[in-house]
Amino acid sequence: MSTRFELLGTDGQARIGRVSTAHGVFSTPAFMPVGTAATVKAMTPDALKSTGAEIVLSNTYHLMLRPTAERIARFGGLHRFMGWEGPILTDSGGFQVMSLAGLRKISERGVVFKSHLDGSMHELSPERSIEIQHLLDTDITMCFDECTPFPASFETAKTSMELSMRWALRSREAFKPRDGYGLFGIVQGSIYPELRQESANALTKIGFEGYAVGGLAVGEGQETMFATLETTIPYLPKDRPRYLMGVGKPADIVGAVMRGIDMFDCVIPTRSGRTAQAFTRFGQVNMRNARHADDPRPLDEACQCPACRQFSRGYLHHLIKSEEILGLMLLTWHNLNYYQDLMKGLRGAISEGRLSQFVMDFHAGQATGDIGVTSA
Amino acid sequence: MSTRFELLGTDGQARIGRVSTAHGVFSTPAFMPVGTAATVKAMTPDALKSTGAEIVLSNTYHLMLRPTAERIARFGGLHRFMGWEGPILTDSGGFQVMSLAGLRKISERGVVFKSHLDGSMHELSPERSIEIQHLLDTDITMCFDECTPFPASFETAKTSMELSMRWALRSREAFKPRDGYGLFGIVQGSIYPELRQESANALTKIGFEGYAVGGLAVGEGQETMFATLETTIPYLPKDRPRYLMGVGKPADIVGAVMRGIDMFDCVIPTRSGRTAQAFTRFGQVNMRNARHADDPRPLDEACQCPACRQFSRGYLHHLIKSEEILGLMLLTWHNLNYYQDLMKGLRGAISEGRLSQFVMDFHAGQATGDIGVTSA
Repeated sequence: MSTRFELLGTDGQARIGRVSTAHGVFSTPAFMPVGTAATVKAMTPDALKSTGAEIVLSNTYHLMLRPTAERIARFGGLHRFMGWEGPILTDSGGFQVMSLAGLRKISERGVVFKSHLDGSMHELSPERSIEIQHLLDTDITMCFDECTPFPASFETAKTSMELSMRWALRSREAFKPRDGYGLFGIVQGSIYPELRQESANALTKIGFEGYAVGGLAVGEGQETMFATLETTIPYLPKDRPRYLMGVGKPADIVGAVMRGIDMFDCVIPTRSGRTAQAFTRFGQVNMRNARHADDPRPLDEACQCPACRQFSRGYLHHLIKSEEILGLMLLTWHNLNYYQDLMKGLRGAISEGRLSQFVMDFHAGQATGDIGVTSA
Repeated sequence: MSTRFELLGTDGQARIGRVSTAHGVFSTPAFMPVGTAATVKAMTPDALKSTGAEIVLSNTYHLMLRPTAERIARFGGLHRFMGWEGPILTDSGGFQVMSLAGLRKISERGVVFKSHLDGSMHELSPERSIEIQHLLDTDITMCFDECTPFPASFETAKTSMELSMRWALRSREAFKPRDGYGLFGIVQGSIYPELRQESANALTKIGFEGYAVGGLAVGEGQETMFATLETTIPYLPKDRPRYLMGVGKPADIVGAVMRGIDMFDCVIPTRSGRTAQAFTRFGQVNMRNARHADDPRPLDEACQCPACRQFSRGYLHHLIKSEEILGLMLLTWHNLNYYQDLMKGLRGAISEGRLSQFVMDFHAGQATGDIGVTSA
């Protein structure tokens, strides 16, 4: 039996559920921290676990180039290699190779591309991507697809989506069913409802353990993204998890959960942690700002992460000004903790049928701005 | 009552002891990790504690410039600011300002220098250095001294040492005695036994809670350093801790402990951790070397640090090749753990009267080279 999804409850379009995999269970709605090169940047696996993260994402493209999938397989798979015992989902590499403008050539067969590391030539196809993800021992394998550029004409989007659908079928055929392992299809079709629906139907007909919405968060804006979700999600099976790829900021996640999305991944919390940006209940805080220099308060007094429990804003600011590694370690830790707290809050609200109130409170908090943290 | 030293035992010239401070007790021989800018680079205080570190060193020079001693005082002192509850020793800034070639002017009164951060002018004197260290709330304050350049003629070394001795007296007079706080004098005199003895006598006459040997590990070589210790230590009081500043590599520490030194600090374990160098029972290992790429063994199977318990050499190598922050975090952690294990081993050997055997085993291990770790 493949990965298993249990739908535990709904609140409007929002869902709460549980996905069982070969390496354990994770609750949905879930946020997956991004571990591109077999490490969530600046976090030990223990630290990551302490944030509440239950599943991490890693990248076929990066790992196939370094240290290579074959090497990771010799180490017993990605879980053992990176010391993460829980579930892992891997990108198929489709999104990354499409980003290599000028360095890649797409054909029916797949994509030939130049490594960004050493210029060597490589090929990814549905079959090779699935094979790599198998070598990595990833719990949730993603279909190899073409991530349609944005903006795209209807014709371009249609041609691209249809290629992705043929690749989805080849991915399904290449995937070796194993207990606790699953394959997710990826809906494409840019911002065209008709194409999204056609794509969703094509994937449903093939049949997958989960369905991702791809090709969003590429510059279309939150409103268009939400509109696309609204016209796509009704065409996805209710008994499978739905994954919005590469999203997003806290408000994006909240809005997508309200529209029925179950899974997310994004580099924002980790990348922001390395550039002095902190996410809090009161909105985004730039810790480089001089007003923090004498501030003895924690970043967020309600947060249980080490950055908030053990240190002041003044100290975090000092670390950032001094370009100390501990500064980015602590802000990364905090941001991932904030994201997991947000997901926990969403799950609690859905299960108790108070999501609308939760979302109103969330937006009120975000609008407060930093001043909201004033305690004395 | 100031800081207190209890001598618990000896083995030859080597000593085992305990120093009590306002923020707790540390065992000697002790290695103090360096937290230059109020953080031991890439380590959380919790991680640092887990290595067995009981006292950390921080720097007057760096902290006076950023975030300033007055700011740290407003935060309740350095312990609270950096989240380290145990004892702290601070450099007086003497060594750092002397390193600012061309940017400083020394007079009887003190040193005027240009900040390396923004070019602003500052002054350090015995009185100001002691005041800053008081503001930082450091448990062990170091006298402000002139670190004699190496090499130095007898005349230069003598003039410099005599200035340091006058500054030592002014430091003593400026230091406010408080329960659990102590002031250490610093022996200077370059490599001239006569000057070292004169300096040791001058300091002993003033009277300090501990005695440091300064001006070594500046290029004189291990043999000369050990020779200088041998001609200096007999002139230091037996009932006070002896601190060899800025030392060193594992073999330097072992040799100095054998000659009666009780305390050490050095950036080597942390700096090496950021440049892929690992210290082990079998010598130094360059984790950037390609031979580790497929190695499933831990860096050191006897080590209990997270880098060794949770990860393979292959994974550590991958992190370093990929320039991942986790790589330097884990190697820093390992190196600090190795240094603390070494100190623990030295203390155990001294207390059981088997230091000679321990030292022979240590050197045999270091000479084995990396191959010694082969387990299967």
